[in-house]
Amino acid sequence: MDDRSPEHPDVRTITLQQILEALVDPVRRSIVTQLWEAGTDIRCGGFDLPVSKSTLTHHCRVLREAGLIRQYYAGTARMNALRREEVDEAFPGLLDALIRADRAVRREPVPGGR
Amino acid sequence: MDDRSPEHPDVRTITLQQILEALVDPVRRSIVTQLWEAGTDIRCGGFDLPVSKSTLTHHCRVLREAGLIRQYYAGTARMNALRREEVDEAFPGLLDALIRADRAVRREPVPGGR
Repeated sequence: MDDRSPEHPDVRTITLQQILEALVDPVRRSIVTQLWEAGTDIRCGGFDLPVSKSTLTHHCRVLREAGLIRQYYAGTARMNALRREEVDEAFPGLLDALIRADRAVRREPVPGGR
Repeated sequence: MDDRSPEHPDVRTITLQQILEALVDPVRRSIVTQLWEAGTDIRCGGFDLPVSKSTLTHHCRVLREAGLIRQYYAGTARMNALRREEVDEAFPGLLDALIRADRAVRREPVPGGR
């Protein structure tokens, strides 16, 4: 992590409204679910998503500003980390329930799903 | 309940996308939270909300179509019931976590909060 890291909201200022506005988007839910499933940080470009690089950058910024992910540089790669423990501290059980629901949906052969 | 009851989606067709689109709106979250806290059905007009009757009708329809509430007539009153067990069956823990988060937010003196 170096001084190119963007700003992140303190966990105490995270709002439910921002979290829901972030996760109402299926691409952003997928980013969060992929981070949860990987159990490790993922570089931008490492997500399995059918969107352009600039669209992904936008979605990651929304997630960062909502307090859901932390972004930092490792060399030239911008990395993304799920702020799971911090979000769970603010809203107990919420992120896990949302990810569980999202994973259940993705396991089903829904039209338009992955 | 009589034949004026509107249509309701089967619990098996409820989608996470619709639930989140319904509950991203703070007025609709408040309706669901008030039903949860009351522990009983509430007639339209019985909610503590600073919105017009037609706006409330709209919000209740969105909640009904998302599968979150059941609407029925009792005499001339249109009643609203939370489909808590059914939603919990579809997405375990999700509704409770969302309501818990919503209640935590409302307990705090947030500008614009109740």
